[in-house]
Amino acid sequence: MKININRLMSAIESYATYGQVEGCGVTRPSFSKADYQVRNLFIQELKDLGMTVTVDAIANIWGTLPGTGEKEKPIVMGSHLDTVPNGGKYDGALGVLVAKEIIETLREYEVTLAHPLQIVSFTAEEANEFNFSTMGSRALSRRLHAEELRGASDKAGTTLEAAVKKAGGDLSKIDAGQENAMAAYFELHIEQGSKLENQNLSVGIVDSIVGIYRDLVTVEGQQNHSGTTVMKNRKDALVAAGEMVAEVQKLATALDSDTVATVGKFEVFPNAANIIPGRVEFTLEVRSADKTERDALIRRIHDSFHSIQEKHEVNLTIINSYNMQECDFDKQLISFLEEAAMEMGIPYTLLPSMAGHDAMNLAAMTKSVMVFVKSINGISHSPQEFSLPEDIEKSANILLNALLKADQTL
Amino acid sequence: MKININRLMSAIESYATYGQVEGCGVTRPSFSKADYQVRNLFIQELKDLGMTVTVDAIANIWGTLPGTGEKEKPIVMGSHLDTVPNGGKYDGALGVLVAKEIIETLREYEVTLAHPLQIVSFTAEEANEFNFSTMGSRALSRRLHAEELRGASDKAGTTLEAAVKKAGGDLSKIDAGQENAMAAYFELHIEQGSKLENQNLSVGIVDSIVGIYRDLVTVEGQQNHSGTTVMKNRKDALVAAGEMVAEVQKLATALDSDTVATVGKFEVFPNAANIIPGRVEFTLEVRSADKTERDALIRRIHDSFHSIQEKHEVNLTIINSYNMQECDFDKQLISFLEEAAMEMGIPYTLLPSMAGHDAMNLAAMTKSVMVFVKSINGISHSPQEFSLPEDIEKSANILLNALLKADQTL
Repeated sequence: MKININRLMSAIESYATYGQVEGCGVTRPSFSKADYQVRNLFIQELKDLGMTVTVDAIANIWGTLPGTGEKEKPIVMGSHLDTVPNGGKYDGALGVLVAKEIIETLREYEVTLAHPLQIVSFTAEEANEFNFSTMGSRALSRRLHAEELRGASDKAGTTLEAAVKKAGGDLSKIDAGQENAMAAYFELHIEQGSKLENQNLSVGIVDSIVGIYRDLVTVEGQQNHSGTTVMKNRKDALVAAGEMVAEVQKLATALDSDTVATVGKFEVFPNAANIIPGRVEFTLEVRSADKTERDALIRRIHDSFHSIQEKHEVNLTIINSYNMQECDFDKQLISFLEEAAMEMGIPYTLLPSMAGHDAMNLAAMTKSVMVFVKSINGISHSPQEFSLPEDIEKSANILLNALLKADQTL
Repeated sequence: MKININRLMSAIESYATYGQVEGCGVTRPSFSKADYQVRNLFIQELKDLGMTVTVDAIANIWGTLPGTGEKEKPIVMGSHLDTVPNGGKYDGALGVLVAKEIIETLREYEVTLAHPLQIVSFTAEEANEFNFSTMGSRALSRRLHAEELRGASDKAGTTLEAAVKKAGGDLSKIDAGQENAMAAYFELHIEQGSKLENQNLSVGIVDSIVGIYRDLVTVEGQQNHSGTTVMKNRKDALVAAGEMVAEVQKLATALDSDTVATVGKFEVFPNAANIIPGRVEFTLEVRSADKTERDALIRRIHDSFHSIQEKHEVNLTIINSYNMQECDFDKQLISFLEEAAMEMGIPYTLLPSMAGHDAMNLAAMTKSVMVFVKSINGISHSPQEFSLPEDIEKSANILLNALLKADQTL
């Protein structure tokens, strides 16, 4: 049994027309006009496949195909249909459409699973104006509550409550205890990195998601006139912060591992050509699948910040703003994927995900795992995002066969 | 003959009430409500002193006291009455009010000079929303023309043309060739630095204004996801720019002179915690009274930027945006001030001004010089800006006596 790659590729192209602007990729954030349109398309197509469709409190879309009745809890496959502004055709949509293609394939081969089979498209996985990324899976896994969500609105002033309602959800039911017991969750996604390409592999089996740690760092020096303050009397916040940024890069690079550290947001005050900067605020982000290495790197970075602070006689404040622990995926599901790959003679590697995904929230509820498809040039969140049909085909077939193994074993 | 320090100090306090917000200093940019009010006050007080008042094309305010008729060209004293937002009582206003106090003193002592004596308050010396600092003196010295000024407007959409007109000026007459032949220009100002305080001196005689050189520097790396891009594959524009900022400080400090170099404006794109910065734009400013040293420092900084660029494999663009040559003040006027100080037994030093002033534009038209008064803690452009009455008194008396010498000699 194999998926139909041509049908899958035309589904990808067809979904990409929702929010597509010629030459500028796909702009389809959750609750945009294009998102509401693609939701309707998706619901209609699931119904056409004979599935029962429900929309939950946070507006995640679920399609259910009954099993033989032998097993009660559903096996779920899915991802998300929203994109970043000027994103690509693959980030999110690929996982949803591969799941749909697998359901079409099972239907064609007239295979009914022992478990009910569900497909899910999660709401607002990407960073969005409401400031809750992986919103749908966080709400589902009780990591977000109605009270947190209720105050949110976008730049145009639309409340999240209204946006969710328009998509068929209902914020007031978020905490009402929906029954979501699952047997397993599978998510296929593009890698968004270059590891598979560098190893010349079509597919990766994701064994973990890295922990993500973020600090908000404030450096305060002494704002002064750039002409009248001689060099040796300066307490320049930007000079100190600049050295800190260079040190972050140096310390993380020295590890020679997959652990990464980044200063991505960096703001200078008052930010005028003739004023010595009095204050700099920046974010420090560290990601690693190895908790020990991550904690050691954070300690080393903080130590270097304090040395630089003393040298420049500036003040330093470090506030931890985010600390998501690393998440390990289910060993049994990983073994189903590995067996499927080996049986099909497709080389693969085990690797951690360096980005967050809905699957990390699902891992708190059920056995979870992810499959990565090679990204060309490691590019994502860009119109240049691309994966080859042959890599997609291999990955989807591995997922199909692992699903059958899970259905037999769980 | 000596000025009346009590009368002068109460004038300073009185003018500071215009635009004063309790605890937040003085906010009196040119063409603000407070500025229009202080202009009316100033014009009325000049008239009360028996002066003829005129407002020129760019709305500089001039008061004239006739001389004995022996000499035709006026000797001019002045500065500016505008302030930066949340500025102090002294930057600008002190020079205007010392000039006014000297006129009051001469009147009290019934001294009439051989030259006509003029007082001037220049329009918009400080950086302002119309983007023309030292606007009044630049227009007067034909360094700014009507066509450049005509398109300017502030954030509220008020055109400079309308703002100037409301103050009694007329942009259409800027280039009409006003007759401004002067015998000499004296400007007293706070130091805005710590050199006098460090040498325990009340007063400095300014022999030059530094040259100011500014580049707009753009560093372009490769924007990418902070999680999925391993350290060794990064081209992080912020890391490269951070090293450049540290290098600027290091190279300028190594000179161990008055030459200064500053990165004051620094912007990161796209500026998000989870994106490796793709581009940084920053300003480089170098100020020095020594042209050779300045040019050598700029060369050394540019060389270091190119080394850092190569190391990080980023692109670098350096565009020179401003290059004002240093300006020497008039040796004869300097000698009048030195003689006056020596005769009064007041220790002084000769020093360059590290900031631009109206006097640098006047130096292109006539013999010019400046007197600096000690700033406490070197602070300016701040509510904490402060100078001691005894330092102000000594400086004003030196200016008064130098004025008398100039009147006799020129």
